[in-house]
Amino acid sequence: MPQINDVRLLSDLRHLRSIGAMENGVVRPAFSEADMAARCWLKSKFEEAHLKSTIDGVGNVIGESSNAGKVLLLGSHSDTQPTGGWLDGALGVIYGLEVARALAEDPATQHLAVDVVALQDEESRFCGCLGSHSLCGSLSPEMESAAVDRDGIVLADVLRQAGLTDIPRVRLDPDRYVGFLEAHIEQGPYLEVNKLQIGIVNSIVGLGERHFTFQGEQNHAGTTMMTLRKDAATALFAFANAINEEFPKIAGPRTVWTMGRVGIYPGAASIVPGYAELELQYRDPSETVLDALEALIERLAKEVSSRGGAVVRSESSRERIVPVEMDKILCSNLQSAAEQHAPGRWTEMPSGAYHDAGVIATILPAAMLFIPSIGGISHDFAENSHDVDIVLGCQVLADATTAILSS
Amino acid sequence: MPQINDVRLLSDLRHLRSIGAMENGVVRPAFSEADMAARCWLKSKFEEAHLKSTIDGVGNVIGESSNAGKVLLLGSHSDTQPTGGWLDGALGVIYGLEVARALAEDPATQHLAVDVVALQDEESRFCGCLGSHSLCGSLSPEMESAAVDRDGIVLADVLRQAGLTDIPRVRLDPDRYVGFLEAHIEQGPYLEVNKLQIGIVNSIVGLGERHFTFQGEQNHAGTTMMTLRKDAATALFAFANAINEEFPKIAGPRTVWTMGRVGIYPGAASIVPGYAELELQYRDPSETVLDALEALIERLAKEVSSRGGAVVRSESSRERIVPVEMDKILCSNLQSAAEQHAPGRWTEMPSGAYHDAGVIATILPAAMLFIPSIGGISHDFAENSHDVDIVLGCQVLADATTAILSS
Repeated sequence: MPQINDVRLLSDLRHLRSIGAMENGVVRPAFSEADMAARCWLKSKFEEAHLKSTIDGVGNVIGESSNAGKVLLLGSHSDTQPTGGWLDGALGVIYGLEVARALAEDPATQHLAVDVVALQDEESRFCGCLGSHSLCGSLSPEMESAAVDRDGIVLADVLRQAGLTDIPRVRLDPDRYVGFLEAHIEQGPYLEVNKLQIGIVNSIVGLGERHFTFQGEQNHAGTTMMTLRKDAATALFAFANAINEEFPKIAGPRTVWTMGRVGIYPGAASIVPGYAELELQYRDPSETVLDALEALIERLAKEVSSRGGAVVRSESSRERIVPVEMDKILCSNLQSAAEQHAPGRWTEMPSGAYHDAGVIATILPAAMLFIPSIGGISHDFAENSHDVDIVLGCQVLADATTAILSS
Repeated sequence: MPQINDVRLLSDLRHLRSIGAMENGVVRPAFSEADMAARCWLKSKFEEAHLKSTIDGVGNVIGESSNAGKVLLLGSHSDTQPTGGWLDGALGVIYGLEVARALAEDPATQHLAVDVVALQDEESRFCGCLGSHSLCGSLSPEMESAAVDRDGIVLADVLRQAGLTDIPRVRLDPDRYVGFLEAHIEQGPYLEVNKLQIGIVNSIVGLGERHFTFQGEQNHAGTTMMTLRKDAATALFAFANAINEEFPKIAGPRTVWTMGRVGIYPGAASIVPGYAELELQYRDPSETVLDALEALIERLAKEVSSRGGAVVRSESSRERIVPVEMDKILCSNLQSAAEQHAPGRWTEMPSGAYHDAGVIATILPAAMLFIPSIGGISHDFAENSHDVDIVLGCQVLADATTAILSS
């Protein structure tokens, strides 16, 4: 089996970190000066590795093998959150580069074909997974014309500024590839807490979000007796607490839900709230579970409404993200490699966060590999992973790639 | 018994309404131009009624009877909320004026001594019940130097602007008075809902306020499993809902509580909240009940903390307002008069809102009379009462005043 070069791997990761570095983190949002500089550097590194390299019309950097036969696509995204961590997607991009080099250096594997990709704007500056959507042909004109960042800058202007307007956009040819493997940090504490080194992602969870309003009656907090109140906050607390008490009864082992946004109006100590708002987000790898959660939500909303206090209204606040199954054959190859290098210290797990692999899975077999995040921290300057885990993950990816392409 | 003049009563109330009128409401906050104009007009009306009248150094308008013997003080406040209703305290001021006039016009009662007062800044522009505190000698230099309105204007400047800086401040002489009667609109729906015309206030409720913080851990809403979360919002919902479920078990018939202010941070749908805040206000006529509520609050806060999620901290956010008992003899005189004019259509009740009578009760026997508020609405342009109730309340006050001063 080809051996990855751990010094070269860590050195390249650290060089990429230096482009847009701030404190311990990285500021390299999609299409920023740092982001485009990183893409130019990646293109040059892909070329050094004898991959035919281009930056396409949305900023994806693609390095293509000239070897014959079916190709495995490796990679992730190299853009970061506005204040991001140094690994995140960058890890998967440099893993891809290192695996391509390691296979090319080993006479037993130098005939195998690996393409590497650094995808654009996974972090939703303009449009989540912009680069992978473009590669898969699912970046619609509607998505593109609605693509505006939080400062009101439109995508078309940024593409023009980056000199990409007239550059062709690459489309993945499903006939070229056996599949796509994306490595990423876990972004959660599961692996670390369970003392594991590798997570093999068997699915990317689906996600629903609902917005609730509670319409009551604003009143004087001293003179309005409890029996006469229609307190919007009381209804919200009852509903939110019921969600937290009832969800566990039908949740799967990986169901998560969050009520991260609340508003109580008018928001004064001496006024019975007349109106309130709540946002609920829920994720699960199974659509059946998501359906059951939504049915429960509607039942609880009706129940709280029927108490005669505030009236609860519920509406979907985003289109549901459908759960995506990862490819079983690719996963089993990752599992074999993990078992060899970290026996008993790997697990199958769903990804609670969304990833480019979820988009690419719509046209190619796809799978993902996670390495532990220290403290579960991500999207933060403090994001980090142990070198030993970084190196191990890359070797597992190299072995799995070899096995997949050799079968 | 003296007869009040309903046409004169309603006409004077409407004239007072015209000073600072806006839409159906009144904008006459303490020391505003409209407020000082209203005080000048009231002084002239007190003089017309043969009361020796002054505007004192904090803006109180006092009209003193020159009759011999013990005096009953009548009145309320004539300032309004920034966007207030037309009756509120104005009702009690004009009631006092009308009762003084009605007694003076009746040969059988013209020897009785009634003083009338229009108190200043009950509505807390600078300091709640500023005028009555000043009259009672309980406006401390500390309260006065801390008196700043929401625009940062300090009391001393406003007094100077109103020409009051060097005007003496009146102090009530407890030896002069048998007591104080304040009439007011109910500001709640209790009388209306129960088809009653008069409320005799037997106590002004006490009030406590506590501020709670919930310290959890901010995390990614997709990758942090439920068992690993310390969700500040979850703890807040559980605590607030427990308050609403447990309070009724120990509450008195007139206990009210309100959670009118909530903050969940950072306030994003995809982030597990790391910090939350909640304000709880509770009122009851009994200190024993207030004590029991506070013990329960602490027990529930500990219980939610002990679940291992967010840590709940609780602190008092204002000095407790102690419940005030109204004077039983004054109340029984009000009750007799109410029973005569509205047999079976009056009730004893606590006041859920605070009033100047709560301050004056510290140095004089004091009692209050409520008339119904339409829809329970107050502190709003829509505030109103039926003319028939306004007239009835004034006659009840006139009869009670006569009875008190004749006994």
